[in-house]
Amino acid sequence: MAKNVMEFTIEWGETDAAGIVFYPNYFRWFDRATHALFKAIGLPIAELTSQHGFAHPIVDVGCRFASPLRYDDTVRLETTVVEVRERTFKLEHKVFKGETLSASGYELRAWVKNEGNGKIKAVSIPLEMAEKLR
Amino acid sequence: MAKNVMEFTIEWGETDAAGIVFYPNYFRWFDRATHALFKAIGLPIAELTSQHGFAHPIVDVGCRFASPLRYDDTVRLETTVVEVRERTFKLEHKVFKGETLSASGYELRAWVKNEGNGKIKAVSIPLEMAEKLR
Amino acid sequence: MAKNVMEFTIEWGETDAAGIVFYPNYFRWFDRATHALFKAIGLPIAELTSQHGFAHPIVDVGCRFASPLRYDDTVRLETTVVEVRERTFKLEHKVFKGETLSASGYELRAWVKNEGNGKIKAVSIPLEMAEKLR
Amino acid sequence: MAKNVMEFTIEWGETDAAGIVFYPNYFRWFDRATHALFKAIGLPIAELTSQHGFAHPIVDVGCRFASPLRYDDTVRLETTVVEVRERTFKLEHKVFKGETLSASGYELRAWVKNEGNGKIKAVSIPLEMAEKLR
Repeated sequence: MAKNVMEFTIEWGETDAAGIVFYPNYFRWFDRATHALFKAIGLPIAELTSQHGFAHPIVDVGCRFASPLRYDDTVRLETTVVEVRERTFKLEHKVFKGETLSASGYELRAWVKNEGNGKIKAVSIPLEMAEKLR
Repeated sequence: MAKNVMEFTIEWGETDAAGIVFYPNYFRWFDRATHALFKAIGLPIAELTSQHGFAHPIVDVGCRFASPLRYDDTVRLETTVVEVRERTFKLEHKVFKGETLSASGYELRAWVKNEGNGKIKAVSIPLEMAEKLR
Repeated sequence: MAKNVMEFTIEWGETDAAGIVFYPNYFRWFDRATHALFKAIGLPIAELTSQHGFAHPIVDVGCRFASPLRYDDTVRLETTVVEVRERTFKLEHKVFKGETLSASGYELRAWVKNEGNGKIKAVSIPLEMAEKLR
Repeated sequence: MAKNVMEFTIEWGETDAAGIVFYPNYFRWFDRATHALFKAIGLPIAELTSQHGFAHPIVDVGCRFASPLRYDDTVRLETTVVEVRERTFKLEHKVFKGETLSASGYELRAWVKNEGNGKIKAVSIPLEMAEKLR
């Protein structure tokens, strides 16, 4: 299955008054990692949108937190496509600090097409794109 | 069980280039709603922290998305304590636009005590506080 | 000149590891206050956009910080239109905690029209709208 | 004068419903760049804080916007220390997309020492640290 690894350092603005990362930021990273994975496998989302009107809204998301992160920690986010169905796909996201797992989450996303006027329609993932995700 | 209702309007900065709310913001609202619920039941978190060193880090969180939200939408976030255990408690968060459910999520949080030096320890929820949550 | 007052409480997620508000959040509030002011004077931006294609991008912005804000502080944000020119307008934003000034800033914004394809053009502020801003 | 260059790509979550970057994000980048500059010149802020109790709160900040940024744009943020005084220092931040200037801003920051209990005191920038900033 397609995989992406992202390394980054915790920003000052991502922490809260307890000195640890404010948890919604993990999902910001997940979204960024999904975009990075798509680019890495030759499906840049900017092109999917402009050329095909495709988008990938979240259907279901979750995360278990094991160990907090602090300012300036260097983390590694490993993202793997774990399921590709007719109209949805699922990504697993694991956040590590060194060898310590900080959090483990997933995103279930739909494959939709913009029909204009803010309307979207669930569509089948094109075969060659599903192949790249697998 | 303790409950809290919060109404607010979607901010311009919460939307993304597709015109809908960027999903990590839902968790920002969940966190805010949990803090509001604690205040509403007479357990303001600012006091729990300053007087007892208590904090409530996230253990597990999830959300299912049913219908997107756009700039200037008025939404209602209903938060309910659905479980109070020895050292954890669970909140359910439902986001509505009018009668339409936009998203349904939960937070499982631990009850911990700051021991200084950034160390925390899981502790039992004090009985009178557990009562207020129930 | 048109004026708007907004009251709100500092969210947990707006603080940083030093326990004070991470400063970019002040600009998030300024933007929110500008949108609120437009709605209050009968020029809701959602309508300006959908009916006229108008938008109000930032040209210049600044802020002086006098006193930090912490979690759960109740603040008052006073926003005043201080200048309306042919194609720009300026807002002053003052953030108070009680009687103490926390920050004083401004936004200079242009009045533009979306021409489609992501192109915008600076246009004159329609007279009746300029009147409402004044 | 000390200088730092940072390159990054605009994230999906940094855009707004008009398809351009929501302006408070520029200040998030400025803050991140200032931290990166300190690290680059051998003054990592994590150490300044833990070893000396130093912090560098914003006194004054501003930004002029020349050209909007969109999702997936690659940008370069050039940060330069432009002034070092007794108790304050000033940084200039310039954001480029290719050769096009997107925004030009500054941060004036104070040099303070945490005295405990949330109290801070303005102090003189230690000479050897001022040297590194220059």
